[in-house]
Amino acid sequence: MERVLIKDIKDYIGQDVLIKGFVHVLRDQNKIAFIIMRDITGQVQCVVLKDCVDFTKIKEISEESVLEIIGFVKEEKQAPGGFEIETKTINILSLANPELPIPINSKKGGEETNSSTRLDYRWLDLRKPEKANIFKTWTALEKGFRDYLYSANYLQVYTPSFMNSASETGAEVFEVKYFEKKAYLAQSPQFYKQMAIASGLDRVFITGPVFRAELSFTTRHLTEFSGWDFEIGFVNSHYDIMDEEEKMIKAGFTELKNILPELEIPAIPFPRITLKEAKDKLKAGGLDAGDDTDLNPEEERTLCEIIKKETDSDFVFVCDYPISKRPFYHMRHENNPELTKSADLLYRGIEITTLAQREHRFPKLMEQAKEKRMDLETLTDYLNFFKYGCPPHGGGGIGLNRLVMKLLDYDNVREVTFLPRDVNRLNP
Amino acid sequence: MERVLIKDIKDYIGQDVLIKGFVHVLRDQNKIAFIIMRDITGQVQCVVLKDCVDFTKIKEISEESVLEIIGFVKEEKQAPGGFEIETKTINILSLANPELPIPINSKKGGEETNSSTRLDYRWLDLRKPEKANIFKTWTALEKGFRDYLYSANYLQVYTPSFMNSASETGAEVFEVKYFEKKAYLAQSPQFYKQMAIASGLDRVFITGPVFRAELSFTTRHLTEFSGWDFEIGFVNSHYDIMDEEEKMIKAGFTELKNILPELEIPAIPFPRITLKEAKDKLKAGGLDAGDDTDLNPEEERTLCEIIKKETDSDFVFVCDYPISKRPFYHMRHENNPELTKSADLLYRGIEITTLAQREHRFPKLMEQAKEKRMDLETLTDYLNFFKYGCPPHGGGGIGLNRLVMKLLDYDNVREVTFLPRDVNRLNP
Repeated sequence: MERVLIKDIKDYIGQDVLIKGFVHVLRDQNKIAFIIMRDITGQVQCVVLKDCVDFTKIKEISEESVLEIIGFVKEEKQAPGGFEIETKTINILSLANPELPIPINSKKGGEETNSSTRLDYRWLDLRKPEKANIFKTWTALEKGFRDYLYSANYLQVYTPSFMNSASETGAEVFEVKYFEKKAYLAQSPQFYKQMAIASGLDRVFITGPVFRAELSFTTRHLTEFSGWDFEIGFVNSHYDIMDEEEKMIKAGFTELKNILPELEIPAIPFPRITLKEAKDKLKAGGLDAGDDTDLNPEEERTLCEIIKKETDSDFVFVCDYPISKRPFYHMRHENNPELTKSADLLYRGIEITTLAQREHRFPKLMEQAKEKRMDLETLTDYLNFFKYGCPPHGGGGIGLNRLVMKLLDYDNVREVTFLPRDVNRLNP
Repeated sequence: MERVLIKDIKDYIGQDVLIKGFVHVLRDQNKIAFIIMRDITGQVQCVVLKDCVDFTKIKEISEESVLEIIGFVKEEKQAPGGFEIETKTINILSLANPELPIPINSKKGGEETNSSTRLDYRWLDLRKPEKANIFKTWTALEKGFRDYLYSANYLQVYTPSFMNSASETGAEVFEVKYFEKKAYLAQSPQFYKQMAIASGLDRVFITGPVFRAELSFTTRHLTEFSGWDFEIGFVNSHYDIMDEEEKMIKAGFTELKNILPELEIPAIPFPRITLKEAKDKLKAGGLDAGDDTDLNPEEERTLCEIIKKETDSDFVFVCDYPISKRPFYHMRHENNPELTKSADLLYRGIEITTLAQREHRFPKLMEQAKEKRMDLETLTDYLNFFKYGCPPHGGGGIGLNRLVMKLLDYDNVREVTFLPRDVNRLNP
């Protein structure tokens, strides 16, 4: 007999079905028992009458145990959804210890347990029915991104996590004992995706973990998160990169609408304003943080509120950051060399992307590296990529954890991360 | 003017086009010059006549420089493909140092340079026209895999690289300085994908790097490679896992046929034989390596040759390895507890997958862990996953580097890896 998913049982009224799942709720009333069974697709009530051959098993079964139930689907007005399963046989696949360390089916949704304890028992925390949506969202979003990227002839590459030097700053990089040497974990696939362009691969995307050894304890930072990076050859400016990113995001949201029917698919192009314009809007709105070279988290939130009011967009590109706040490899505006051809993408109050056109001309890149007092020796491998011809290019990376957090209205990236890792958390 | 990809120029005969790419070959004959331009899609000959406004730029240009060329497409019987571009303007985007460290357009294909030097200049090595196929293959294969997995309701999860203990053996694990503690890099997402099943996610797949600190210097081993893992809940046996893997591979090959038209899409089911049957076939074929508990690389090669002759299949599942060669968490056959419900998938002479049904029953799992003298303390987090109910489940992982190597007939996984990492190589 083939398994029927719980969402499909409604098509089997008047027939026998085999279902498999977890015991969400068990009510044993001695002469009759009710089991609410749960699988990834939904829940259904199974009634077990005293004359069922497996009625005696009810005493053994605990909530969260895993069962196979065969039974007859019949209409029942009292039952949730208007039908229930009259149980014929019960096969116990795995018994749960009856003392659950965190509640799963409580009326408060189990969220009354503090976050740290819930994360200690993450595999139980994720059983709560609404949490499956987190991974359905990740999966659909990525499917949509890929639909666009495949259609636009991007190639996927896998860039290494191991680097031979602590790139860029040297700070915030994890060190690995690598046989007799030291290696470092890549903070981003940045250098390697630029190499893909120097290799003539034209346009690439990269998914994989990125590692940040930041001593951060915020709701937005993890030591390991999932990066979605892309790099595009033969661009004319950072505007081309924004064009691509918003098409990708739109495709992701379009796919996601299958899971989240209330979701609005964003209109493109997204609003684009310069950092200077953003600062002017904030000042006009009464917020003056003093620093004209960057946006702090509060400014990001307020700016998004202003843009939402003005344009109804949840997204906004903030462009043209000053060179002081951007790495040496960002290309600079020809007509204003104090500004980089870069942008941040903000979504519902939080930065989810930094993108830029890169400086691909070797002499110019060397000059900018020296000006920023970079250690040229550490950068040798990177700088070499530009010696033998390299197309003009640029790209960015999307922090998927943050995007999913905002999409599903959680207030901490940990809540949407399968197994978060931070300064204090390395388990389970 | 919009860029035209070189493969599409044939549709523009009699028109002007803008192309962008690398100078593959430059022949300067003083009164006329020929530039063979290369992009990710192909090559085209551009003729530059003395009366071209940019003719003087020819002296500046070196091979592998990056150009934009606008010109008129005209039929020319002498030219490769029957047409060429009569150059109107040349825009130099990036000049290559004329001393290339490795040849790119040599008649021998540049492969006369030894592999280590080529890998030192990987971004030049990858410019050789045939090498773009490597990443087209990876991309198409993954797209095909995903087509199947999405259609079969798998969810994607990203499992962490950081672990708090050196799982399984403790050997061959990279150690990371993690603030004041030590962390270890996951050798596989094994434990965490099992956790996904214990979380009720039903069926999942995971892509990402896996890390092996093996002191191996073979053509098949890297310290970091791209894993494609999947785990399936509510399986009845390891045969269910084989069923799923072969459907996924078939879908991958079907997509790949768009890139490699000669490719044969494998018939499913793949041949399945027990390890004992495999050994008997090898002995009958005159190969007796003495060890009846495993296959060595020579036996894997020979077995694949035998199976190919017998069934015309490039794939074969070898099933039911003895418990001595398998980890404690592999489920054992009810009727023969010396054998595990496991299999290796061999493809063209090399193992590309190990799969198994896992032991999901907590008491039985503890028993097997003790029998294998595992350190139960190190395994606490893992063992906890099975205490509160867990569906029967199993899964496997595909080593994509090996699969792509065999698909494209390379003899070393390094050749199909974007930037290989091994005991001696951490750069570029």
